[in-house]
Amino acid sequence: MSSDRILEELARVLEARKQAAPDSSYVAGLYAKGLDAILKKVGEEATETVVAAKNGDPEQIVYETADLWFHCLVMLAHQGLGPEAVLAELGRRFGVSGIEEKASRAK
Amino acid sequence: MSSDRILEELARVLEARKQAAPDSSYVAGLYAKGLDAILKKVGEEATETVVAAKNGDPEQIVYETADLWFHCLVMLAHQGLGPEAVLAELGRRFGVSGIEEKASRAK
Amino acid sequence: MSSDRILEELARVLEARKQAAPDSSYVAGLYAKGLDAILKKVGEEATETVVAAKNGDPEQIVYETADLWFHCLVMLAHQGLGPEAVLAELGRRFGVSGIEEKASRAK
Amino acid sequence: MSSDRILEELARVLEARKQAAPDSSYVAGLYAKGLDAILKKVGEEATETVVAAKNGDPEQIVYETADLWFHCLVMLAHQGLGPEAVLAELGRRFGVSGIEEKASRAK
Repeated sequence: MSSDRILEELARVLEARKQAAPDSSYVAGLYAKGLDAILKKVGEEATETVVAAKNGDPEQIVYETADLWFHCLVMLAHQGLGPEAVLAELGRRFGVSGIEEKASRAK
Repeated sequence: MSSDRILEELARVLEARKQAAPDSSYVAGLYAKGLDAILKKVGEEATETVVAAKNGDPEQIVYETADLWFHCLVMLAHQGLGPEAVLAELGRRFGVSGIEEKASRAK
Repeated sequence: MSSDRILEELARVLEARKQAAPDSSYVAGLYAKGLDAILKKVGEEATETVVAAKNGDPEQIVYETADLWFHCLVMLAHQGLGPEAVLAELGRRFGVSGIEEKASRAK
Repeated sequence: MSSDRILEELARVLEARKQAAPDSSYVAGLYAKGLDAILKKVGEEATETVVAAKNGDPEQIVYETADLWFHCLVMLAHQGLGPEAVLAELGRRFGVSGIEEKASRAK
């Protein structure tokens, strides 16, 4: 799989785990604890990303940013949202999809 | 363009803006201010994402999460990294790419 | 004045500014913007404190921690609370006031 | 003891625990883990303070703000600093100590 479908694929996994027993996985446990526990993790991982960037260690930066994005995906899923909406907002804002759309129409 | 290429496309835009004059765009200005200014924005947007989630307003949640991911991309670009590494880490961790790989091999 | 009354004195100043016009001071403006704007500042200053600590510059650490505590005081005031309750909680938790109380009783 | 000496008293306790074995207390354990672990807690507690304020529960707000200030004190102690410097900065900035000083001179 190309890397670019991973967020959507991961969102499907997160959606499926909503039906799972709280003790069946880390994510199922987080859902059961509720929104405040998920948000605590978002804040914690944001700080770890900041610390990793200050340390300047590429591996640590990638690891902590992945942790941060992952917990954002859990929060989105908990709120009935998904990464597509966030990516669409980014595309809209920076005219990225617009540029690409024009290019694909020209073909 | 499908939404799934947006992070990579956006990373290319961010890379290109590294050459731009500091007053030519918001991102060029952030690069010029340096890592600490970028990280301040990561922390600020993480808090705004948490507040949006507590408010429970889907539009605000999407908007603030987009802001957070965007400033993560700026941080990654500033450190010579990109979203592919983060997505690969997420795929590796959750076996997402593995599942897909198996599926594509079976064809 | 000894440094130890500063939080309480500052809380009195913050309480008084609740009556002021939004454009009369930074704090009056923050109150007018409301809780979410105040919390955004708490998150922002927490990140700046983390960055300052990583930089290891004592002056910057003191400055940013002061900013963080200040915006916590604004949040407390906005919620009808004050630093005494926080200090009492810290005292209770670490047995600090207990130790002192015993000492003062012994006199 | 009046509540206003608690930060200084707590700083003395934190200073003393620097000599303790890592497994002798929570704080001794945090010192042993080092600055990044302490900063992770600062970020985590800042987020919990934000969430508590959004919940609007006075008891939770006081509890989480105490947690945040406490981990700031641990960070300051780890960096060889103390709350007096932060309080002095707050006093200087808001003219609080100045006002008091004038009042005490007038007596």
